[in-house]
Amino acid sequence: MAKNITPRHENFPQWYQDVIQAGELADHSPVKGCMVIRPDGYAIWESMQAWLDRRFKETGHVNAYFPLLIPESFLTKEAEHVEGFAPELAVVTHAGGKELEERLVIRPTSETIIGHAYAKWIKSYRDLPVLINQWANVVRWEMRTRMFLRTTEFLWQEGHTAHATYDEAQAETIKMLHVYKDFMENICAIPTIIGPKPDHEKFPGALATYTLETMMQDQKALQSATSHNLGQNFAKAFEIQFLNPENQLQHAWTTSWGLTTRMIGGVIMTHGDDDGLILPPRLAPVQVVIVPLWREENKEQVIAHANKIKAALGEVLDPLRVKLDLRENLRPADRFFTWIQKGVPLRIEVGPKDVEQNAGLAVRRDNREKMGINLDAMKTQVPQILEAIQQDLFAKALALREAHTHELDDYASFKDLMAKGGGFVMAHWDGTRETAMKIQEETKATIRCLPMEQPSLPGKCMVTGQPSARRVLFALSY
Amino acid sequence: MAKNITPRHENFPQWYQDVIQAGELADHSPVKGCMVIRPDGYAIWESMQAWLDRRFKETGHVNAYFPLLIPESFLTKEAEHVEGFAPELAVVTHAGGKELEERLVIRPTSETIIGHAYAKWIKSYRDLPVLINQWANVVRWEMRTRMFLRTTEFLWQEGHTAHATYDEAQAETIKMLHVYKDFMENICAIPTIIGPKPDHEKFPGALATYTLETMMQDQKALQSATSHNLGQNFAKAFEIQFLNPENQLQHAWTTSWGLTTRMIGGVIMTHGDDDGLILPPRLAPVQVVIVPLWREENKEQVIAHANKIKAALGEVLDPLRVKLDLRENLRPADRFFTWIQKGVPLRIEVGPKDVEQNAGLAVRRDNREKMGINLDAMKTQVPQILEAIQQDLFAKALALREAHTHELDDYASFKDLMAKGGGFVMAHWDGTRETAMKIQEETKATIRCLPMEQPSLPGKCMVTGQPSARRVLFALSY
Repeated sequence: MAKNITPRHENFPQWYQDVIQAGELADHSPVKGCMVIRPDGYAIWESMQAWLDRRFKETGHVNAYFPLLIPESFLTKEAEHVEGFAPELAVVTHAGGKELEERLVIRPTSETIIGHAYAKWIKSYRDLPVLINQWANVVRWEMRTRMFLRTTEFLWQEGHTAHATYDEAQAETIKMLHVYKDFMENICAIPTIIGPKPDHEKFPGALATYTLETMMQDQKALQSATSHNLGQNFAKAFEIQFLNPENQLQHAWTTSWGLTTRMIGGVIMTHGDDDGLILPPRLAPVQVVIVPLWREENKEQVIAHANKIKAALGEVLDPLRVKLDLRENLRPADRFFTWIQKGVPLRIEVGPKDVEQNAGLAVRRDNREKMGINLDAMKTQVPQILEAIQQDLFAKALALREAHTHELDDYASFKDLMAKGGGFVMAHWDGTRETAMKIQEETKATIRCLPMEQPSLPGKCMVTGQPSARRVLFALSY
Repeated sequence: MAKNITPRHENFPQWYQDVIQAGELADHSPVKGCMVIRPDGYAIWESMQAWLDRRFKETGHVNAYFPLLIPESFLTKEAEHVEGFAPELAVVTHAGGKELEERLVIRPTSETIIGHAYAKWIKSYRDLPVLINQWANVVRWEMRTRMFLRTTEFLWQEGHTAHATYDEAQAETIKMLHVYKDFMENICAIPTIIGPKPDHEKFPGALATYTLETMMQDQKALQSATSHNLGQNFAKAFEIQFLNPENQLQHAWTTSWGLTTRMIGGVIMTHGDDDGLILPPRLAPVQVVIVPLWREENKEQVIAHANKIKAALGEVLDPLRVKLDLRENLRPADRFFTWIQKGVPLRIEVGPKDVEQNAGLAVRRDNREKMGINLDAMKTQVPQILEAIQQDLFAKALALREAHTHELDDYASFKDLMAKGGGFVMAHWDGTRETAMKIQEETKATIRCLPMEQPSLPGKCMVTGQPSARRVLFALSY
């Protein structure tokens, strides 16, 4: 067990902080609630960006950049939007040595400033759809912050699209929800439950908010991305109008969708163990680390052999991301430990005997399984092992979620479960905000979403006994 | 001639604005001095980022992310630094509905907040060098702004490194200067003159600032990137200290270097013509646009042939970035015009005759040269034409600079030249700030740099007659 990491069963939040510290993923900053993302943490974000950016472009989107600073008056144009974001705004009042005539807020999200631009650019149905994404930083002044999961400043992408009809906007909203699901499950190896939020939990100004809910190892839910159908709310507030083929002036239908650096926290809390970070191979910035172990008399041969292995792994069809650890003056155990704590999925140890046998010893990060592999077999076997790790991590996370997901029909059991640490509960709810609030006050559990991919059978609300159209997902959450 | 673009000889600044508008590169924003970078402008930035990011990594750097907001007190820790940046700061005074105890500034540059982090991370000579880059937005409250060239908010990369010795920091400063030179000349096709700034023009807090100066078509200089040797100034202000191998506590030596979205303006003003933008092929997000010209009766065959050409160009060793224009309801001239104004280096027109002849008509954006090319020859000829465009654009820019570069020894001629619109002047200067200021007041010309790649021969100052170690570069500038 790692001495620098508190075990999960003792204190899960402390374990989380310790894993970040041990992996050198992030650091505190002198500004309350802001974090420094260190190179090994940022590399994970770059890996996320690369996959998402490619997929956004494959689905017809282009990138652009809109201003960081937004006139305060813009936010007030959409009533629900300003109500939702006003308490979290950071405000610039002075600039260039003078007090500003109009206060500027640092973007908490960009629907307003982008809506203003779209109103200028969109004139005719021929200008639609507009499919733009932005990679940016945003600021939301949060009371309680936690690295990656909730920080005052965070990095994200925000997609903003405009369409001619409700149907097209709705199709875009659902399409991007599924892009996120693909990313979460097949790259991050995190199972998701997707569906709309109940009305009282949706994005301020949205018609509907779709979410991806994931279970962390402490059985709490993490909302990992959202996709909003904004209806005509922002189009009306910012006068995004177009002439349709019949020459009639219409308001556009808009969407927005975002995924943030919070997901790095999701990966840590889904896959990490008591020794630290474990990265899924498809996401890992370094997939394989080769650690040659030499003495002075065989240094040259051992390093030459390690380089041969590195070269072989660079020759596979989809070249692997491989690092060679040539650090001196460190004991082998300390060298291994670095890569364990940084979550590298596979380590290949190479010593003098491996030179003789033309082989290396592969050690999986997730289950510590060791396998001697001949150099000639590495090109085929190492990608297979990485793929197995990817699948096993997903299966393990799914098994955990299934073991802690319950269908409950009586509220006493529900309260009992939430008091004992929670889990995912599929239960009937009468559809009112009042009942949801009562449950939240009494148990801290909230409705995470109305799961789309599960059968929708009617029943009776576990609290009020009123009719319920379907079970919804309850959980304690981040 | 394009009707939507003012000719260069009539009004160069208006031409510049018109080209940006016509190419849909950027738009004004409701916040004074801030711009919206539209998709076609942002794609140029993405192309710049891709090349630079790869090169930074090849030279051993990693990316990280530091907070946007900096405590105001941090800036005051380095005396010259605060003096230089204080007039340009945007200040957050309120957040989360309350007045802040300490005012926060939006980063104008990140030496201070990064220095604070490095002081925590660096303990021993074994921790050095630290080689980190950040892609970020910064805010400097400017009085007079111009799209891309000088905006209140801009995007950039800022490298920040820490070293054990002066020599290593100086070597890094010069190495990155040459990375920028490679980028400017070989990707952007813009000739550069590199060298240190005179002391009174260096970065606030730096020991030495190295710059790349380029000539725009109006003969003004554009400073395109800078690389700073910061000495121990920030290390002392933020206590970045390390134990050397002899166990003595030493201050580190730091550098910083940056390149901004300003370079998009540099590309526009170096290569554009009276019809709009011209992009160098290696930088261009779209290198070749294929425009099929069909009638209803041959639509299928013409488009099929255009697709064959597209496929062929995707098969070359370094696949080309190709777009197929399938827009309907637009006259051919209007379709061509779009791509001319967006600066796409090569257009390939495909009509029914080209289907018969298994060919296409390639038209260069820079010199309008037209060449019929057989489909079978496209794979070899199109990359060659693109390479020729790249070389020709550089050669043309270099010829312009050479035609407008003068060695002058008398101040009367110098004043005369600057009054007539300027040019680059290599002249002797006595090395004092006073003389430089006198020249600037009388002519608006400033010393751009002390060119490193030109012979350093002594002479006499053109103004005071005092001894001068070498000629320096004077110009009017952006």
